Amino acid sequence: MCGTDSPASINKGSLTSANGNGTRSPTCSSDRVLNLEQGDPSVFQSYWSKMEDKCTMVISGSQLMSYISDFTTLCWFMEPEFQEAVRRLHRVVGNAVVDDRYIVVGTGSTQLYQAALYALTSPGGPEPVSIVSAAPYYSAYPEETDYLRSRLYKWAGDAYEFDKNGTGPYIEVVNSPNNPDGTLREAVVKNRGDEGKLIHDLAYYWPQYTPIIRPADHDIMTFTFSKSTGHAGSRIGWAVVKDKEIARKMSKFIEMSTLGVSKDSQQRAAKIMGVICDGYKNFKSDELFFEHTRRVMAERWERLRQVVDRNQVFSLPKYPKQYCLFSGELIEPYPGFAWLEAKEEEEEIDSQKVLRGCIKVQGRTGSRFGVAQKYVRVSLLSNEEVFNQFLERLSTIKSISNGH
Amino acid sequence: MCGTDSPASINKGSLTSANGNGTRSPTCSSDRVLNLEQGDPSVFQSYWSKMEDKCTMVISGSQLMSYISDFTTLCWFMEPEFQEAVRRLHRVVGNAVVDDRYIVVGTGSTQLYQAALYALTSPGGPEPVSIVSAAPYYSAYPEETDYLRSRLYKWAGDAYEFDKNGTGPYIEVVNSPNNPDGTLREAVVKNRGDEGKLIHDLAYYWPQYTPIIRPADHDIMTFTFSKSTGHAGSRIGWAVVKDKEIARKMSKFIEMSTLGVSKDSQQRAAKIMGVICDGYKNFKSDELFFEHTRRVMAERWERLRQVVDRNQVFSLPKYPKQYCLFSGELIEPYPGFAWLEAKEEEEEIDSQKVLRGCIKVQGRTGSRFGVAQKYVRVSLLSNEEVFNQFLERLSTIKSISNGH
Repeated sequence: MCGTDSPASINKGSLTSANGNGTRSPTCSSDRVLNLEQGDPSVFQSYWSKMEDKCTMVISGSQLMSYISDFTTLCWFMEPEFQEAVRRLHRVVGNAVVDDRYIVVGTGSTQLYQAALYALTSPGGPEPVSIVSAAPYYSAYPEETDYLRSRLYKWAGDAYEFDKNGTGPYIEVVNSPNNPDGTLREAVVKNRGDEGKLIHDLAYYWPQYTPIIRPADHDIMTFTFSKSTGHAGSRIGWAVVKDKEIARKMSKFIEMSTLGVSKDSQQRAAKIMGVICDGYKNFKSDELFFEHTRRVMAERWERLRQVVDRNQVFSLPKYPKQYCLFSGELIEPYPGFAWLEAKEEEEEIDSQKVLRGCIKVQGRTGSRFGVAQKYVRVSLLSNEEVFNQFLERLSTIKSISNGH
Repeated sequence: MCGTDSPASINKGSLTSANGNGTRSPTCSSDRVLNLEQGDPSVFQSYWSKMEDKCTMVISGSQLMSYISDFTTLCWFMEPEFQEAVRRLHRVVGNAVVDDRYIVVGTGSTQLYQAALYALTSPGGPEPVSIVSAAPYYSAYPEETDYLRSRLYKWAGDAYEFDKNGTGPYIEVVNSPNNPDGTLREAVVKNRGDEGKLIHDLAYYWPQYTPIIRPADHDIMTFTFSKSTGHAGSRIGWAVVKDKEIARKMSKFIEMSTLGVSKDSQQRAAKIMGVICDGYKNFKSDELFFEHTRRVMAERWERLRQVVDRNQVFSLPKYPKQYCLFSGELIEPYPGFAWLEAKEEEEEIDSQKVLRGCIKVQGRTGSRFGVAQKYVRVSLLSNEEVFNQFLERLSTIKSISNGH
């Protein structure tokens, strides 16, 4: 029961306040809001803490100073070591075809999404191209598509709706496994001849989140360091691209947008990917990266499902077991987010408000993902202390209707 | 005389080809093209080589993993250490007012230019706002303004022309010292009431390039790590902003564009700026950064002017000496680029083609900067070997008209 709690005012700083020592660390006292709105991948930090020595990056004052990495290549600001590490990682994991494909580095997959829109639509026609994705879609797509009011493209919402009633040229973004709901997806819009193009956002197509059902082999696939290894602060993403001209245009976009991508972070990503791959080559680590992180995610999901089943207020998606080529086992998906749906019959229930008001947990409302506000997305990628607090608080909700 | 040389085909890779050891190093054999088109700041590398120990950046595998630096601040992805270092550096140099100003970090000043356009024009009206800059203007502005065909803003060319004939809301970009011609500038468009807004691009307003004539104090000022210390590969820039709402919108732009800025590079920039400032505090360095780099630039300009004066084919701008608050002396500007103007009377002379065809030096034509092609911009920021080769080759040109 939580009827007496009034929704606290939003305090985004609750998890990153400075303590007396001048360092920033999470705090979890019961009167503070748990910010689980973003998918900040702190869960993987403990693994990397144990690997310190192997992964330490050292850069002297005179290294990596030039804009240019290799002017003879299409993506001239990409460090060769980074490209090599990306190809090697995909070969080890088997989640994407990289032979005879172009790699383009970006400042996170956020920039690569926009680079792909530019590459597929420029120089542009009289009308902007419609950009669609099946609801519930990643909440950042609409804003990232429309903030500059481009004449090249415009956000057109739910791909199912566009399939029924939309017309004209379009790009469908296929996010698989999907953020927020964790489902493995395929394109939705059908039978449009050559009017449609696809971008596959595969940020979460890694063994800690999902069975690897096949090596993905699409025209444009984007990945990110943030979700693969947990290093969000480095802002590194990459695209695997079939067509040379598309890869060239994506590189050109990044040149015009940011004149390249941090070399410091590219080198750090190459190093960390290399440590992961070396682990699989030598089998010397106590626990290999994807095995460790999959185990942590599996434990979190098991505990989460117990709490959700017990209090009967929300439901979670059920995922089928599928054969994972990476592990060689039939396994379940363990998405990075809990996609909670209120069980009450009323469609108007605002689950974000319920979580916020009743247990001071900040999630993100379903309406941001193009569906009803009875859904709310909650990050499962926090550190252990915050995750434990979340479960503890969630277990105290016994009824939504008493909650507001 | 170079009449017998035929223009070689463009080979952008000429300076970054792989050698037998698998490392990339510049090569300067006389049949290779010297690429001096970009302003890659290799000239400062030798200084940083001598400072190795002090500037070495060490990042363990578990550090800097979060998206978030400090959610209580407006620019939540900015590392507090970076912000502190930026303010300290400006206070040491005296080139900008930073007290009671907001700092916004960006992926180079390229991204901050676009963030400023967004902040000053969104949500936007029926017509795009005109973006102007006095010719010769930085060659990247037109492309960076127009590549997404935004309805918020559009490139409208030369500010002098707009002052005479342009109408409606506008933003003038004041680049001072100006790239390509090195002049200290003020706004050109006058008497428009509140229709106009300003962005000051102060990438080169540092003591190695120009006298610091006053602490700059404009509404939006952008700076970059690339040109201040020479670390272009880190893609770090910052804006100093008076108005809170503008700073907030610029941060929002960077959030939507790249979801923050590499923390690895922010921390590296903080460290290197700290080493520079410590030098001025302790006076222990053999030679302090700005004194060293100013001396190198002064020597290059002296040698360049000798060659240019001797062969009487091109002319260079003359810059007045001005009192520099930083050095306490009357000094000349030493811009990062040579802005060469062909002395021949014909306006149609293509100086880029002359340099390319006669001496295999790749510059950038004046037409890219909105002026006649008798002008060509050549980078003076290359490493010593390339700069020496450039002067050697330039000294062989005796006549343009025989050159094509």
